[in-house]
Amino acid sequence: MITNWLERYSDNSRDYGGYSIGKLFALLNDPEIISLAGGLPSPDMFLKEEMRAASRKILQNNIEKVMQYSPIKGENTLLAAIIDFLKNDNVFIKEENLVVTSSGQHGLDLTGRLFLNQDDIVMLDRPTFAGAIVAFQMQRPKFVGIDIEDDGSNIDEYRKKIKELLSRNKRIKFIYVVPDFQNPSGITMSLEKREKLLDLSYEFEIPIIEDSPYRDLRYYGETIPSIFSLDQKRGGQNVIGLFTFSKLFCPGIRVGFNIGPAEVIEKMTNLKEGNVLNTPKYNQDMCTAFLTEMNLENHIVKCRNYYREKLNVFLKTMEEYFPPEMGVKWTKPEGGLFLWVTLPKHIDTHELFYDAIKYKVAFVPGDVFFAENPAKNHMRINFSFASKEQLAEAVKRLSKCVKDKLL
Amino acid sequence: MITNWLERYSDNSRDYGGYSIGKLFALLNDPEIISLAGGLPSPDMFLKEEMRAASRKILQNNIEKVMQYSPIKGENTLLAAIIDFLKNDNVFIKEENLVVTSSGQHGLDLTGRLFLNQDDIVMLDRPTFAGAIVAFQMQRPKFVGIDIEDDGSNIDEYRKKIKELLSRNKRIKFIYVVPDFQNPSGITMSLEKREKLLDLSYEFEIPIIEDSPYRDLRYYGETIPSIFSLDQKRGGQNVIGLFTFSKLFCPGIRVGFNIGPAEVIEKMTNLKEGNVLNTPKYNQDMCTAFLTEMNLENHIVKCRNYYREKLNVFLKTMEEYFPPEMGVKWTKPEGGLFLWVTLPKHIDTHELFYDAIKYKVAFVPGDVFFAENPAKNHMRINFSFASKEQLAEAVKRLSKCVKDKLL
Repeated sequence: MITNWLERYSDNSRDYGGYSIGKLFALLNDPEIISLAGGLPSPDMFLKEEMRAASRKILQNNIEKVMQYSPIKGENTLLAAIIDFLKNDNVFIKEENLVVTSSGQHGLDLTGRLFLNQDDIVMLDRPTFAGAIVAFQMQRPKFVGIDIEDDGSNIDEYRKKIKELLSRNKRIKFIYVVPDFQNPSGITMSLEKREKLLDLSYEFEIPIIEDSPYRDLRYYGETIPSIFSLDQKRGGQNVIGLFTFSKLFCPGIRVGFNIGPAEVIEKMTNLKEGNVLNTPKYNQDMCTAFLTEMNLENHIVKCRNYYREKLNVFLKTMEEYFPPEMGVKWTKPEGGLFLWVTLPKHIDTHELFYDAIKYKVAFVPGDVFFAENPAKNHMRINFSFASKEQLAEAVKRLSKCVKDKLL
Repeated sequence: MITNWLERYSDNSRDYGGYSIGKLFALLNDPEIISLAGGLPSPDMFLKEEMRAASRKILQNNIEKVMQYSPIKGENTLLAAIIDFLKNDNVFIKEENLVVTSSGQHGLDLTGRLFLNQDDIVMLDRPTFAGAIVAFQMQRPKFVGIDIEDDGSNIDEYRKKIKELLSRNKRIKFIYVVPDFQNPSGITMSLEKREKLLDLSYEFEIPIIEDSPYRDLRYYGETIPSIFSLDQKRGGQNVIGLFTFSKLFCPGIRVGFNIGPAEVIEKMTNLKEGNVLNTPKYNQDMCTAFLTEMNLENHIVKCRNYYREKLNVFLKTMEEYFPPEMGVKWTKPEGGLFLWVTLPKHIDTHELFYDAIKYKVAFVPGDVFFAENPAKNHMRINFSFASKEQLAEAVKRLSKCVKDKLL
């Protein structure tokens, strides 16, 4: 009987554990805990009746096709709807530039799988989206992180580091960024920095992976053009864009898309074929209905108003319960679902997590958002899921818990 | 602007093209062509009204959960339903032995990804399921194929080859088989050979991957115990089982599962997390309804009767239109969706494919079912999708087309 399975695994999977925070989430079953940990959109924003109606229609008119295999690249109707959707954002693509994915995570994995050999270098912000780290890690690249600034990636530091890496003959496969209301920090990259990042990309011929799941969820300020659209404007094709309908429509449907140069998309489509064949047609048709039949503009305005109020409650209560003398700082995002709290250096938020649970409040310890050399004194806060009352109460509990550590 | 994308791809993906038959399928749009090429179950066997009713119920009672993220491993209700489903087949597992996949293809990819480094050896039958070849190829293993016999894998040849490989210090990661009504050949492995394959597995400590999507679709003869169940009976845990609901329920829903030792399943679940996070809950709930609310036994009986009739028509017409003097042979499957036609050696079925299209009939050239050193004179025939009338007509057209080549 085989007992030594571990030694049979591939080098890439042997030490691979997925998200390390799974174990922490298992501790959050107590219904009295107010969790600011998940990345969940609010069910209040789910288009429930609309989904029921769309489902009836899809199953009434198309059930045989829904139950059969469907094209790997995606349903023609969804491809067309996405192409239209992107026009509103000044992104102009053809079908050849687009592949439907089975979620944002899937889009990330197809990207890592397409580009990364072991020890290839991925550059990214510190902190950055943990799901991207987890996806890319399956290929065992080397991560080189650059501390993020209040207005986004530190382009000067990227330049320095790129030069240094190239001088050591290192292979940089891509730069991964979440320019809009970054998960976990809530930070948005300025227009100037987006252009400068493109300059870098052109100068050193390094592709940019732009992951922007929260782009439409802006509560303050003006929309900044996507890096993809800026690249198009400058006649480039250095950017691969990743999107998911998880935040705007719902996560449960598991549909997103990747856009980019035709040959990159074709290759990703090949990989998708070997990986899952096709995204289920029902789920795609539901997204098509969402994009074309559900009054999308109305929905976006409603989401913006709803999440803005939650953000305001959270920020206002933070001001009140974390006075300056506590030495705690936090970002003030203009959109998205997350903000980033920085505690005094000596506080390890992984330890704090267990204390916080005793205070019946939870967050994600910041270390999981660092691809290398994690900082220990940060928390990621999700403000989209809990109710306004819960958010205010959660801040009070957090404040007590942190005060204990400051004594 | 980046133009040289190819050199940026990972070594594993650079030359990866997915299924090579995609291009052939694109030629089958002419509605007059009778296609025996696809692997499609018949929509006549789809539980359409049942799916509509189940969908209404799922969306009525559970829409918030359907629209939200759900567990990576799978919904508890589906896990329980699968565990029950397997008991009927004398397979007794716990939750820790089970992970829900987003289709059979997904189960194959998780398997390849978990075990295979470049140049590791995968042993498999000649021919074997093309989707498995395509999944494993993403890890660039070496394939070692053994010609299949009428009663399944040639275990003596496997043994010889294993010894030879081990004597050359080669690493054999697993043996992949489709023991029930194999795609593409329709061949079923005898009980004796299943036991002998297990002997091999124990002797040389080589895991067996048992892929059995057609297992319930038996039209003649007695069910033979799965290799997984035989292994359990002998106290082993050398077998990893792959299953999909694509053939029994419908492909469009994209749900399947992998079973095996707890530590293997945990690792596959980690890989699934980085790859797609979770299988959509709606699709899982639909499978749960299929397993627990839709009179599964009745459905299986209905499918068996329906597909048996089609198989009979096909075999009968073959007898009539391919008399012995033509030198054409074909398998007589006891179940499944496919059979395997062997033409005289000098006929290349890849070339014949284009002729056949002119005769308005299509099949899959057999070469794609060989992981290495493809034989050229075979066709895979699907008998589940076309109507009985079409099947008979297709055989007549095929016969004319082949006769042309024999002249």
